[in-house]
Amino acid sequence: MTCSAFWCDQAWRGSLAGVVESGVVIDVDDGVIAAVEVAVATPPPGATVLRGFTIPGLANAHSHAFQRALRGRTEGSGENRTTFWEWRDQMYARAAVIDPDGMHRLARATFAEMVLAGITVVGEFHYLHNHADGTRYDDPNEMGAAILAAADEAGIRITLLDTCYLHGGLDSGRYRPLSKVQRRFTDDDAEQWATRVSAVGCGPQSRVGAAIHSVRAVDPESIEQIALWADHHDAPLHAHVSEQPLENEQCLAAHGVSPTGLLHRHGALGDRFTAVHGTHLSDSDVMLLGEGSATVCLCPTTERDLADGIGGARAMVVSGVGLALGSDSQSVIDPFEEARAVELDQRLASGQRGHHSPAALLGAATAGGYRSLGWPGGGRLVAGAPADFTTLALDSPRMAGLRSCDLLAGAVYAATAADVSTVVVGGAIVVAEGHHDRIDVAAELREVLT
Amino acid sequence: MTCSAFWCDQAWRGSLAGVVESGVVIDVDDGVIAAVEVAVATPPPGATVLRGFTIPGLANAHSHAFQRALRGRTEGSGENRTTFWEWRDQMYARAAVIDPDGMHRLARATFAEMVLAGITVVGEFHYLHNHADGTRYDDPNEMGAAILAAADEAGIRITLLDTCYLHGGLDSGRYRPLSKVQRRFTDDDAEQWATRVSAVGCGPQSRVGAAIHSVRAVDPESIEQIALWADHHDAPLHAHVSEQPLENEQCLAAHGVSPTGLLHRHGALGDRFTAVHGTHLSDSDVMLLGEGSATVCLCPTTERDLADGIGGARAMVVSGVGLALGSDSQSVIDPFEEARAVELDQRLASGQRGHHSPAALLGAATAGGYRSLGWPGGGRLVAGAPADFTTLALDSPRMAGLRSCDLLAGAVYAATAADVSTVVVGGAIVVAEGHHDRIDVAAELREVLT
Repeated sequence: MTCSAFWCDQAWRGSLAGVVESGVVIDVDDGVIAAVEVAVATPPPGATVLRGFTIPGLANAHSHAFQRALRGRTEGSGENRTTFWEWRDQMYARAAVIDPDGMHRLARATFAEMVLAGITVVGEFHYLHNHADGTRYDDPNEMGAAILAAADEAGIRITLLDTCYLHGGLDSGRYRPLSKVQRRFTDDDAEQWATRVSAVGCGPQSRVGAAIHSVRAVDPESIEQIALWADHHDAPLHAHVSEQPLENEQCLAAHGVSPTGLLHRHGALGDRFTAVHGTHLSDSDVMLLGEGSATVCLCPTTERDLADGIGGARAMVVSGVGLALGSDSQSVIDPFEEARAVELDQRLASGQRGHHSPAALLGAATAGGYRSLGWPGGGRLVAGAPADFTTLALDSPRMAGLRSCDLLAGAVYAATAADVSTVVVGGAIVVAEGHHDRIDVAAELREVLT
Repeated sequence: MTCSAFWCDQAWRGSLAGVVESGVVIDVDDGVIAAVEVAVATPPPGATVLRGFTIPGLANAHSHAFQRALRGRTEGSGENRTTFWEWRDQMYARAAVIDPDGMHRLARATFAEMVLAGITVVGEFHYLHNHADGTRYDDPNEMGAAILAAADEAGIRITLLDTCYLHGGLDSGRYRPLSKVQRRFTDDDAEQWATRVSAVGCGPQSRVGAAIHSVRAVDPESIEQIALWADHHDAPLHAHVSEQPLENEQCLAAHGVSPTGLLHRHGALGDRFTAVHGTHLSDSDVMLLGEGSATVCLCPTTERDLADGIGGARAMVVSGVGLALGSDSQSVIDPFEEARAVELDQRLASGQRGHHSPAALLGAATAGGYRSLGWPGGGRLVAGAPADFTTLALDSPRMAGLRSCDLLAGAVYAATAADVSTVVVGGAIVVAEGHHDRIDVAAELREVLT
């Protein structure tokens, strides 16, 4: 057991009332917060002093690490308009060429970039299971193991959202066979998926969750099996849902119901369930998700980049849906940009301001994500939570001059990843003074990307 | 005459074809680019070496410096929805309490923050002319002089867009009298405005332009007088146009025509004219602006923040309108975020990608803004242009690993203000290694904001 203490001159512990407190002492025991005291005027002897504004660790609830390799490379020549589906072809081309060593190196650098941005837990939505030709690796979990090792080395907590992918899409009411590149993704059936996933090995800072790629890639019977696996293992269950209108149309044609309706019909919804995106949900979809206390993981910078549209985040909250946030395609890795984008894009769609409070937005970026990823109670500075927290420096021109009462709004509306000074994961300092303690992130990114 | 030379390992000189060149030597003579040579393998003796990615200086074509004091302070308690007009009340409260010394200090810190973000020229849309009670200062240009001094000290080029503001709004087809706070803004009539503005003194890195606050605040006869002044002085002419639907409705009720139509009818449109925002333009408005080769200055981060909506930037370009960008309310000061927001918000509105090329977006942020602010030929790395340029470091996790062919897209879609390493204005290095050469920006912001 290792014990340590931190003293924060100003901190938000996660209250939705948005209270910022001074002199917050966080006692850590074996990676977990043992006690929190406030209004402690001076740092206790031996405590690590965190100057700036400390918040719970940020959760990136939806990541495809390998897509970091696409940053800056899919913007076309400008006057050629493209769609989400054409972007997907470019993404598939990248997915076709990566091997376990390349995945390990790319994920390690990308996860390290996330920690520098203040992210303390990532949900990696992982579906590159096989050799490029579709045959199994000797260890069928070799790719997943590479991702788990990358997270461990980067110092980030991880939920491996191990993804079932069985079909090549829905067309005219029927499932298409897998395309060549999609054969990397498949376990052939849900039973083989379950057998493989049950064998994934985890450490103290990792766990496994289930993912249904989408209703395009998983049939109803398989959805049921995956949902049962998640229930049986008390694991989170994620699925891409209604990112594009076409998915809704195809699902309706095939099953007479929306993707959310189909997932509900086959037992997937509930409080362990996270719908990723949810950009094009109907009112009744939102009601179904809310009744089950499900989460929607918004990925606003990706949804902007891929021209998905603006999801109805305000209506979700009103209906009882929890929110989480994800960097998804890694076009940007900045949880503050994701948080403000939820509110700002709602403003663009509605002509009104103030749909979500700064505390609610930062709550989605912290506790909402921890809950979605199967670390309940995490993402708050309270006893019993994982000892994960992030400190923002207040000496950049972006943050300078914020009063205590404006710190939360400043963090949401003005901070960037570049303002993160210290990151603690499981009680260990992974980022200090803006530098990763063991990885030269830029050098590794350069090596793996060029 | 002072001569100097710079050697850039990689640079974009401003071509819309998006060409990135290596070994670019920029010779500077008396603040102006004297010659540019490319493919120079090693730095000439005595040349300043700029490692990274050098681009023309960024133009912030629409700024209200004093609104920097509102950052993080108008986000409300979240569940209370507010509108643009309620935000304006908060802004007015701030406008009511600032004096020339306070303006000087706030503008100096804010302009210094802009230079740190790579901005080399600012258009300050200035209308706080009088004492708070509406009486003139002894020197009626005292506030403007404070702003010009602030820009000079911060090392930024400036166009003071000196603004005429005569009425308190349009209501039921008639101009309302000025409210108490609006009496700070007024010259009583356009003739007195012209007399005052003609007396503003400028230096080599400053000039004066004209601004019509809006059709809400300036009547048709005065619009004509201001447009004539701008023609006579060969000065840029700016106006807030159609930021909110209510302005369109009020203008139609009063004048039977849109704000753009009214400005056209009274001689304001043309290639010296910049419509700020243009969020709610009709097709015929856009056609009128395009026929005159006018500019629209988009302020996307402010338009998000104030829930204005998404302007039709693609249609503007197709119609021959030039684009420029502005930080406006200073909720964010990041020209890269503004540039990508133009494209990304178009994607949200349309469901399609690729409306504007990265070179076009960065062109709006550079040459488009210089043109709008009355520095024609500026914002390009070509002989005869002002020697203003900005270098992005490539060693942050955001930018690391971009290939030369992806640098432009990377600058637009991944860079932030925090990635700016060097800024040169008029041949002088104002920012080196990310630090302002004479101002402790965070300390001054803290002092003036708290």
